[in-house]
Amino acid sequence: MDEQNRDNGPKITKSIINAPTNPMVTPLLTDLYQFTMAYAYWKAGKHNERAVFDLFFRRNPFGGEFTVFAGVEECIRYIANFKFTEAEIDFVRDAMPGKCEVAQLLETTLVNLVNFASLVATNAARHRIVAGKSKMLLEFGLRRAQGPDGGISASKYCYLGGFDATSNVSAGRLFGIPLKGTHSHAFVSSFMSLDEILEKSLRSADGSTLCEDFVNLVQTWLNKIQRTKFYGGFGETNLSELAAFTSYALAFPENFLALVDTYDVLRSGVPNFCAVALALKDLGYKAMGIRLDSGDLAYLSCEARKFFQAIESEFGVTGFGNTTITASNDLNEETLDHLNKQGHEVDAFGIGTYLVTCYAQAALGCVFKLVEINNQPRMKLSEDVSKVSIPCKKRCYRLYGKEGYPLVDLMVGENEPAPKVAERILCRHPFNESKRAYVVPQRVEELLKCYWSGSSDKMREDMLPLKDIRDRCIRQLEQMRPDHMRRLNPTPYKVSVSAKLYDFIHFLWLNEAPVGELQ
Amino acid sequence: MDEQNRDNGPKITKSIINAPTNPMVTPLLTDLYQFTMAYAYWKAGKHNERAVFDLFFRRNPFGGEFTVFAGVEECIRYIANFKFTEAEIDFVRDAMPGKCEVAQLLETTLVNLVNFASLVATNAARHRIVAGKSKMLLEFGLRRAQGPDGGISASKYCYLGGFDATSNVSAGRLFGIPLKGTHSHAFVSSFMSLDEILEKSLRSADGSTLCEDFVNLVQTWLNKIQRTKFYGGFGETNLSELAAFTSYALAFPENFLALVDTYDVLRSGVPNFCAVALALKDLGYKAMGIRLDSGDLAYLSCEARKFFQAIESEFGVTGFGNTTITASNDLNEETLDHLNKQGHEVDAFGIGTYLVTCYAQAALGCVFKLVEINNQPRMKLSEDVSKVSIPCKKRCYRLYGKEGYPLVDLMVGENEPAPKVAERILCRHPFNESKRAYVVPQRVEELLKCYWSGSSDKMREDMLPLKDIRDRCIRQLEQMRPDHMRRLNPTPYKVSVSAKLYDFIHFLWLNEAPVGELQ
Repeated sequence: MDEQNRDNGPKITKSIINAPTNPMVTPLLTDLYQFTMAYAYWKAGKHNERAVFDLFFRRNPFGGEFTVFAGVEECIRYIANFKFTEAEIDFVRDAMPGKCEVAQLLETTLVNLVNFASLVATNAARHRIVAGKSKMLLEFGLRRAQGPDGGISASKYCYLGGFDATSNVSAGRLFGIPLKGTHSHAFVSSFMSLDEILEKSLRSADGSTLCEDFVNLVQTWLNKIQRTKFYGGFGETNLSELAAFTSYALAFPENFLALVDTYDVLRSGVPNFCAVALALKDLGYKAMGIRLDSGDLAYLSCEARKFFQAIESEFGVTGFGNTTITASNDLNEETLDHLNKQGHEVDAFGIGTYLVTCYAQAALGCVFKLVEINNQPRMKLSEDVSKVSIPCKKRCYRLYGKEGYPLVDLMVGENEPAPKVAERILCRHPFNESKRAYVVPQRVEELLKCYWSGSSDKMREDMLPLKDIRDRCIRQLEQMRPDHMRRLNPTPYKVSVSAKLYDFIHFLWLNEAPVGELQ
Repeated sequence: MDEQNRDNGPKITKSIINAPTNPMVTPLLTDLYQFTMAYAYWKAGKHNERAVFDLFFRRNPFGGEFTVFAGVEECIRYIANFKFTEAEIDFVRDAMPGKCEVAQLLETTLVNLVNFASLVATNAARHRIVAGKSKMLLEFGLRRAQGPDGGISASKYCYLGGFDATSNVSAGRLFGIPLKGTHSHAFVSSFMSLDEILEKSLRSADGSTLCEDFVNLVQTWLNKIQRTKFYGGFGETNLSELAAFTSYALAFPENFLALVDTYDVLRSGVPNFCAVALALKDLGYKAMGIRLDSGDLAYLSCEARKFFQAIESEFGVTGFGNTTITASNDLNEETLDHLNKQGHEVDAFGIGTYLVTCYAQAALGCVFKLVEINNQPRMKLSEDVSKVSIPCKKRCYRLYGKEGYPLVDLMVGENEPAPKVAERILCRHPFNESKRAYVVPQRVEELLKCYWSGSSDKMREDMLPLKDIRDRCIRQLEQMRPDHMRRLNPTPYKVSVSAKLYDFIHFLWLNEAPVGELQ
């Protein structure tokens, strides 16, 4: 998966391949028909035949022209640890009308492991493209995800697709993803008044002094803020909110980030935050910032920014104007795009529901099709041409042009020669005979690599750490020609076949499809 | 959860509550801010306060007016087994800027466990309503589900919502759901010709005779079919398909169900199926039926039915006309509705992607809000009135009318008297002062029950087997007034508050919301 390793060829890894992350990924996590078919194959004496399957999808998700392929590692973990327990065999034997043989029953599980992984990684990558490189993207989706490992997988693959951090502690622990989080509305509304705060002292950041009554310091700052000109027409702030912020700052003086929309962002949340932040500043701490979770995020972020800047100049607090503003609340690709068009002052986006459930398109249509058995090519026909599969064991290449962009991907039969740099090669649409182009690649990248060859001792590519896969994903996306990646009417990125493979597909097709008779 | 148990009151269950189905459901499956807040609560001395949270959603999914609430059992399993390992505590300590106390950090996990469960159960119930009671509904979604337990949860909760069976073997084993499955296109295309079948003998159903060459018997029947008038204009069938069907029948003579659309449904798949089915019939077996997975399902099912009926009368095979037709291929609520309108002959529907990913609406917005702390009611305010939460620990009742339909649900404060049968009670919209109605209930059902009271020894409702929960769900849906359940413009089913609770909400609201000043 990492092109940088290409020059050295595949590596041998001696380390054990761990079991799948989710212990529920067992050989039984499959459709019943995989067992019935395995039994029928065995009855027909076909269980020793060598079969080749392609795992692929037919259409890129979200109306786009790219997909981040993800989930290979979990597939390899599953295959490398594929073993039935006695109890599992007993269950299958009872569930099936016949005796069951152990066979390679991988289809459903592999497709399951790749489908959502690729879908959500692609979704994350699309959010990154819209948000731009400079913004911090936080995945906050666990509570709305499709079940426990819907949430855990989403955290993993959103990070892979270009997010910076997650709120999901379990994913942080399992995959080493940076963790981010603050507090909720419930925290704010659990406080009634400043009197509830019993432990009021706070030591300064350098440890040199102790502020005996931090609550009083906060109140002093709030009074100062309320007397400024720019505070103007606002009335009192909500004091239970102030109590919550103050408590939180006492617990986390180094990490004070306040959710400011429980009562009223501009009249209460932002001034309360500033009072606490300025009190922290007196003790040598720098507040992290605010989070907006409702309302007009473009407007509120701009107003909050003005307020921070006014504080900076009024009280001479250098850098206060740049206090981080995080926004959340049902964000998605489209709302990010709208925010950009309106103009906003948000530095970080917390994205949940629409990201992790892939709301705009909740499934990717990965399929797993037989393309060769016992060296005989096989092909699935269909009245719907988009459902016809491409036969033969294949090799795939990405051909790059002069400007460094990928021009086209090319599939060739396993035994055909690889395309060569600076050599002209005919690339054909697999089904449309008039669509073809000669390509002279400036660089050729082989896309299919071997991550599992039937045994853990054999040669195979290294499994990279998640961070490295993420880096590669970001690099790969950056090298694409921008018009393939834009949200509106992206230019299709083409996947072609060699002339030889084209001819073979159509020979086989005519050979297998019945000819109708009209009377 | 089961109203039939009401009369006997809650039961004490001595049995141990099992761990969550998915071992990944641990105390770390939560947002980081739950830990930071727990620490801040502890620092503020609030960790011994008694808090009440409501878990609720604001809008029914799929444009409907009902939701099947599901997921309680997994929540209880999680709570009853809530315990940090040493390693987990170490991780939280490192991840957090401060020492962590163990606290009740349930929000994210509970919401996660309820959200998707309720969403997909509701989706299943909606499919059942459209399909009608008489159809068999099969959940085939594992491969397209959002990850491994997206698939397993979907199988569980689709069954709860009214489906009949699943293809997911793991779900069958975990939850006792009936399993269904046949074979795939890959199975069909893995065969080349009838010559591949080496073991050709098949014993008759009653064991009395052995057919030495079942393949020949199938071919004989195919020839007979091809000579009939109704076969008419069709040419040869695909013989690799015939080989696959024959092999499958040899393996599963009792359960022969054929996928007939690999090459051509009417020219190849259906006649091939009939040849094998009639050969099986000669040996005393009854074929299960066919599955259609592409094309115009209404048309193809009607044509297939005609063909079966023609076979029945041509060869005098009683009942052959009723051979089961199963349809799959990207079905959803809307396509079922269209099929009904066009007229079709499908007996069973296999539904996958759109069902298990809840494609029409991929998330439910369950939230978890603090409503009381230390006996003090709390309420979350918001500029958006739909986001305001209803304070106080509450009791909920369903009030039934004369015709047996539920009229309205009513929330009252914990210490208010319960509504009584035949006594008039005022029910008010929680936020709209002019919406109110007097209700004289003919029956009152208490909706909130205690499934966990802090310890496994205490009184609590029984956890019912999945089958019983499913039965209750079906009964509950059937008793709703039909206009609440229809797909187009359903009548809203109302949830109201008592007059006393209404007054209290608005008193608290005015008390807590800041008053703006205009200049």
